[in-house]
Amino acid sequence: MAEILKGAPVAAALTEKLIEQADGLKAKGITPTLAILRVGENPGDISYETGAVKRCEKIGIDVKKFILPDVSKVLDTIENINADKNIHGCLMLRPLADKNIEKAACEILCPEKDVDCMTEKSLAKIFTGSPGFAPCTAQACMELLDFYGVELEGKSVAVIGRSLVIGKPVSMLLQNKNATVTMCHSRTKNLAEVCRNSEIIIAAIGKANFIDKNFAAPGQIIIDVGINLDSDGKLCGDVNFNEAEPIVKAITPVPAGVGAVTTAVLAKHVIEAALVMVK
Amino acid sequence: MAEILKGAPVAAALTEKLIEQADGLKAKGITPTLAILRVGENPGDISYETGAVKRCEKIGIDVKKFILPDVSKVLDTIENINADKNIHGCLMLRPLADKNIEKAACEILCPEKDVDCMTEKSLAKIFTGSPGFAPCTAQACMELLDFYGVELEGKSVAVIGRSLVIGKPVSMLLQNKNATVTMCHSRTKNLAEVCRNSEIIIAAIGKANFIDKNFAAPGQIIIDVGINLDSDGKLCGDVNFNEAEPIVKAITPVPAGVGAVTTAVLAKHVIEAALVMVK
Repeated sequence: MAEILKGAPVAAALTEKLIEQADGLKAKGITPTLAILRVGENPGDISYETGAVKRCEKIGIDVKKFILPDVSKVLDTIENINADKNIHGCLMLRPLADKNIEKAACEILCPEKDVDCMTEKSLAKIFTGSPGFAPCTAQACMELLDFYGVELEGKSVAVIGRSLVIGKPVSMLLQNKNATVTMCHSRTKNLAEVCRNSEIIIAAIGKANFIDKNFAAPGQIIIDVGINLDSDGKLCGDVNFNEAEPIVKAITPVPAGVGAVTTAVLAKHVIEAALVMVK
Repeated sequence: MAEILKGAPVAAALTEKLIEQADGLKAKGITPTLAILRVGENPGDISYETGAVKRCEKIGIDVKKFILPDVSKVLDTIENINADKNIHGCLMLRPLADKNIEKAACEILCPEKDVDCMTEKSLAKIFTGSPGFAPCTAQACMELLDFYGVELEGKSVAVIGRSLVIGKPVSMLLQNKNATVTMCHSRTKNLAEVCRNSEIIIAAIGKANFIDKNFAAPGQIIIDVGINLDSDGKLCGDVNFNEAEPIVKAITPVPAGVGAVTTAVLAKHVIEAALVMVK
């Protein structure tokens, strides 16, 4: 029986600490504030937004919502968020329908408010290993590993997927902790073998139940970042949990794994952005 | 007997094409121009500068040298280079003695003139996989692999070293070509085994003759980016050539391998920067 690495205790521990920090900020007259920018009514966006708002409320972070019917006012809205000294962080729900506007938005957001790592400056910091806000989901993997005491130094890690929100940044964060990362993707040959030979797997490939028993090995830790629907319309990860769980040492569930940590990381970044004001 | 992947033919092929492009630019009234900024009289810097000047002369690229006795005027000089419309690229020989000035210099150089990838914006582009100038030595590895027809799609590559001038950027460039990259470093456990199991090795760890026969495997291609002095004071790479060569399929020598391609890549970047002016 593998240890099940649930996200809730990780989020709870983060939240507890963040409440203290938010109280400290308020005592100094600063109300940590997150701007959420959403375009349209995508159910996934709304669901994530709802979770983020709930987490922020719990911690004592104000949320200002900017909900736009279409992309025409996205850039103006970001300029306003940049100019507003009472806003410390900005989450723009992505992807936008218009790639050019999304790109322009990423270019103009003030890097100090870029709590989900959408700007080039933030991405460069992750690449170079400088302090900065990583994408929330990538950072959530790191928080989860840290919470459960997983040593990363010298460990072999297979990261599957190379997106800018998970695969690439988490690879750099893991390397920063002296792990040896193999960056895998859809064109990787012998993927199952590469995974079997790795001590840790980070699955972020976006394919329901793709990582089956052939990828798993005894002693392994599997972090499943995927959020997919299986053929029955049921929420599932990139990992076939039922096949992998009996083999490995520890595994995150989906739902209630990494996904449960993401909004706590978002809140952490907002608090950190607000703390800069005090310094 | 392994195939010896010499740099000279790669540089020659690049140079031939660049001469044509430089001629084309001159016909349009544009003289491609590189600024070289050097602080002090470090022999390594001067040697690289001499090579770069020679390569540029051959191609028809003007070189403006900015040689400073100390770092006090570095930032002013970069501002002048930024403002000079007749300069298309800037190579600042690094590292500088003063890390803060080096960092500030990297922040202010105009990204369009950043032909050796010292700015955050350029690094972000390499990380995200967008078009941009990679560090010359990292790109030299790619040019060499391309020249000798080494297919990268799906290949397993061990990159040893995680510097911002080689290891990290070349990992991203290789991933962009659909290789599966394992980012190795000084803390990697079982490094020899990881290397033996890889189809290609990029050695950039900065340790003389470190990669010996235990790292090599039949069929392998080894790219040696190291430039070190051995115990006899003789120039050598990170790879023990005499031990690895009889085992592998192909290997670059040191000297006369990757190092011979670097200035041609620098020139290529200057021409590309100048070509933007025509568009």
